[in-house]
Amino acid sequence: MKIYDCKGFPNPARVRITLAEKGLTDRIEFVTVDVPAGEHRRPEFLARNPSGAVPVLERDDRTVISECTAITEYIDNLEGEPTLTGKTAKERAVVHMMQRWAEAGLLDAVATYFHHATEGLEPQIETYQNAEWGAHSRSRAEAGMRYLDEALNRQPYLAGDRFTMADITALAGLAFADFAGVGVPGELKALSEWRARVGERPSIAAA
Amino acid sequence: MKIYDCKGFPNPARVRITLAEKGLTDRIEFVTVDVPAGEHRRPEFLARNPSGAVPVLERDDRTVISECTAITEYIDNLEGEPTLTGKTAKERAVVHMMQRWAEAGLLDAVATYFHHATEGLEPQIETYQNAEWGAHSRSRAEAGMRYLDEALNRQPYLAGDRFTMADITALAGLAFADFAGVGVPGELKALSEWRARVGERPSIAAA
Repeated sequence: MKIYDCKGFPNPARVRITLAEKGLTDRIEFVTVDVPAGEHRRPEFLARNPSGAVPVLERDDRTVISECTAITEYIDNLEGEPTLTGKTAKERAVVHMMQRWAEAGLLDAVATYFHHATEGLEPQIETYQNAEWGAHSRSRAEAGMRYLDEALNRQPYLAGDRFTMADITALAGLAFADFAGVGVPGELKALSEWRARVGERPSIAAA
Repeated sequence: MKIYDCKGFPNPARVRITLAEKGLTDRIEFVTVDVPAGEHRRPEFLARNPSGAVPVLERDDRTVISECTAITEYIDNLEGEPTLTGKTAKERAVVHMMQRWAEAGLLDAVATYFHHATEGLEPQIETYQNAEWGAHSRSRAEAGMRYLDEALNRQPYLAGDRFTMADITALAGLAFADFAGVGVPGELKALSEWRARVGERPSIAAA
């Protein structure tokens, strides 16, 4: 099984943390896509994933899975019981909901800020920028942080009593926020406390 | 079990089609949220779903599930085998990927065009508009249609040989595109043929 990605980028980090949590990292052949050089926009990569996004998983039967949440759910269901995306219909729904909040409200909002309101990556990659939309997305990211903080005032992890995919997505979103210069407001104590606590998991250091 | 929604809107349609496909419509108490009047932005609704989006599902134990894909996956896993989101890890990954393509690349892109580059809903609801981003999203929606058409040149349904959640999301996206005046390019024959064929399912008429 191969994963085409670029270490250090937020969505690749989500997949690598998931693999480490499942003890499956050694089963993967990682193929580096040179995102800073624009390799993800070249025909060879676009043939695998027309959206041009990393990561992409390729099974040994050549089935290609793109979209980060599809990849992480696949990894969680590859062997034995799922541990990160929920077992029952209710658990899965709650994890899915909170994961989507962390993704749309934090990670994607930060990404939009970075790619539209800052220089982003190289000029030949950032072919369309809308600075106003980027600036608006920064405020969306801050609102997303507040929502996650509220959830963490009620429970130790984003989807309840256990570490799940929702926590992984939020951690990747906060790491991207650091990189993009979007600070966590000081009053969001539950979010900061949670981040320090889950940041100690061995899977996080590995990403 | 309750669903707070507004009939005729795209994401409520996805949930209603899913319920009809599963034969579970009669199990739901529908509560209308008057979206055109801005009821989804009022405190009572925001207490249920801070994002202000419909639909929201509320279980009898008061657990609230927001985010459309979390709701539809929940419904598909409520009883017996899932029929719309895949059974094996591989099936689920492919459906999840194609569903996400239809959602991000078509439905969300059309929604962004509608809310930013047209009058959208009432002025008191459309409190932030970015016409340039809206216009750009219209071209994203057309690119999304082309991608779906390519997939349908290879296989009868978006995720392969069977009707799945990916088809439901794409149908809702195309209905929204009609409403917003984003036409399907005439050369996308596979997409138009698929739409006519799946549009005959009884579940679609019910939404």
